Amino acid sequence: MSLMVLGTVALDNVKTPHGEKRNMLGGSAAHFSMSARLFTQVHLVAVVGKDFPREHLDLLRQRGVNLTSLKEADGATFRWDGEYKKDDLNSAITLETQLGVLQEYAPEIGNDQRHIPNIFLANYDPDLQIKLLDLVKKPKLIGLDSMNLWINIKKPSLLRLMKLVDLFVANDGEARALTEERNLIKAAKALRKLGPELIVIKKGEHGVLFYSDEFMFSFPAYPVEEVVDPTGAGDTFAGGLMGYLTKAGKLNAKTLKQAAIYATTLASFNVEGFGMTKTAHLTLPQVHQRMKKLMKCITPPSLELVAA
Amino acid sequence: MSLMVLGTVALDNVKTPHGEKRNMLGGSAAHFSMSARLFTQVHLVAVVGKDFPREHLDLLRQRGVNLTSLKEADGATFRWDGEYKKDDLNSAITLETQLGVLQEYAPEIGNDQRHIPNIFLANYDPDLQIKLLDLVKKPKLIGLDSMNLWINIKKPSLLRLMKLVDLFVANDGEARALTEERNLIKAAKALRKLGPELIVIKKGEHGVLFYSDEFMFSFPAYPVEEVVDPTGAGDTFAGGLMGYLTKAGKLNAKTLKQAAIYATTLASFNVEGFGMTKTAHLTLPQVHQRMKKLMKCITPPSLELVAA
Repeated sequence: MSLMVLGTVALDNVKTPHGEKRNMLGGSAAHFSMSARLFTQVHLVAVVGKDFPREHLDLLRQRGVNLTSLKEADGATFRWDGEYKKDDLNSAITLETQLGVLQEYAPEIGNDQRHIPNIFLANYDPDLQIKLLDLVKKPKLIGLDSMNLWINIKKPSLLRLMKLVDLFVANDGEARALTEERNLIKAAKALRKLGPELIVIKKGEHGVLFYSDEFMFSFPAYPVEEVVDPTGAGDTFAGGLMGYLTKAGKLNAKTLKQAAIYATTLASFNVEGFGMTKTAHLTLPQVHQRMKKLMKCITPPSLELVAA
Repeated sequence: MSLMVLGTVALDNVKTPHGEKRNMLGGSAAHFSMSARLFTQVHLVAVVGKDFPREHLDLLRQRGVNLTSLKEADGATFRWDGEYKKDDLNSAITLETQLGVLQEYAPEIGNDQRHIPNIFLANYDPDLQIKLLDLVKKPKLIGLDSMNLWINIKKPSLLRLMKLVDLFVANDGEARALTEERNLIKAAKALRKLGPELIVIKKGEHGVLFYSDEFMFSFPAYPVEEVVDPTGAGDTFAGGLMGYLTKAGKLNAKTLKQAAIYATTLASFNVEGFGMTKTAHLTLPQVHQRMKKLMKCITPPSLELVAA
């Protein structure tokens, strides 16, 4: 089985307490692809400008990402300038956004891509996310990510879209903003009512919460000591999640837990380097090594109950 | 084996989005005792005033708490007035504190209490915490809790005390304030260097992190939907932790993990009611029932690794 992702491919300038890097390969669909490619072939649907560096394209292609529907349009590539401050490495401060070719873009895919069963709508304009769904035939699993910008300016489109998807991924702030519930269990329940059968709330350094009508589970994050650049951690998480689920070919509590562990592990690598420094060179054996460490850290004991 | 706790016994007035309650039994040592009594006999070392309601004493006594060293002094019982706002139920806002009999108190214990092996120094003035240690003979296990007030105004005493204890419990804010490290793994390592072999960082709704030279583990909290009053959750957690460890009689990774699961479960009951509404009536079978639910929610899958 294969996997399609719609989202942004960007040039990122990022400043963190660990330094500053310019013109890095970034964007929601790029980070997603770099993670999901470990499990399955990923078809990337996005647009870049004529200025997009050849080496970024080469990197994605070398990692097995299908770029048939990565359009190269006249104009400048989408750019994001962001900063993270020492006292809150979880929160990006956007310094500047240049939409460039994003302004004129509508997703297009090849005829042979219409039957790709698993789709992920990475963070993007919900109207364009809906447009991609119009292009595909009977998908098996649709995942969706969004962000506060769209919750604020395109809530009706986002709500319409939520009725069409199976799995919704949000960070804690987005979940709260969309539902107006402070408590994350309540927020998850409220999100479930908006449509998606499976709700995934990412809590950054505090881990992740999965909620459905049948089960709920919660895992801590991998204990990362040096967060260098968290940009793309959520997309990397989603890539691991959807990538593993595509490979597994089944969606149940067991495969979702496995997928959560893979996703958590991949996200931990992402934050340890600028951009894709770490994730671009990852191999599954390296991921598995860290997964075993993570399991050691988060597996509760087999209960021995005290006599009453 | 038995357990001794030094701390406050208070009359609490608490206002939360769920209502307002006055003259509740509160204080660090009282919450601790109400939790630890499920596992072992707890000797409470504290002071109250002549105004302290008989029914609060009766409740503690009926729950098996040893009150030999609960001194009744001339004057008013320590009072705490606090509020929690809807948008951040994790953070108490202190409206008023009346020290009353706390101002003149120094801990005293009976001769037969000097050999109690396990000691917990619940949140209190570090100089008085040190005084209690002067009264006991060769304790086996000493646990310590503190708070930002003492970090700010009595840091030298607190640092001296930390060299004398085995286990240090702090919430995330306290851990950061004491170490000036934002990252909690780094904060845990810095706390370890201050003396205690075992560091426990409580992250409220996000769970708990245990750190020692030999191991590190992290568990999420029980998913509580209605937080009614979080006052005493940390003390309830510590009571479950020390209570179980006292009952187990051994301190190793396995007993600590078990203790963490008990402590997490007990804290979840605490926050579901005002004061001790929930914890005062708890039985071990009820705790075990919820522990099984917690385990279902936080146990990761047995790994099935994808072929590279």
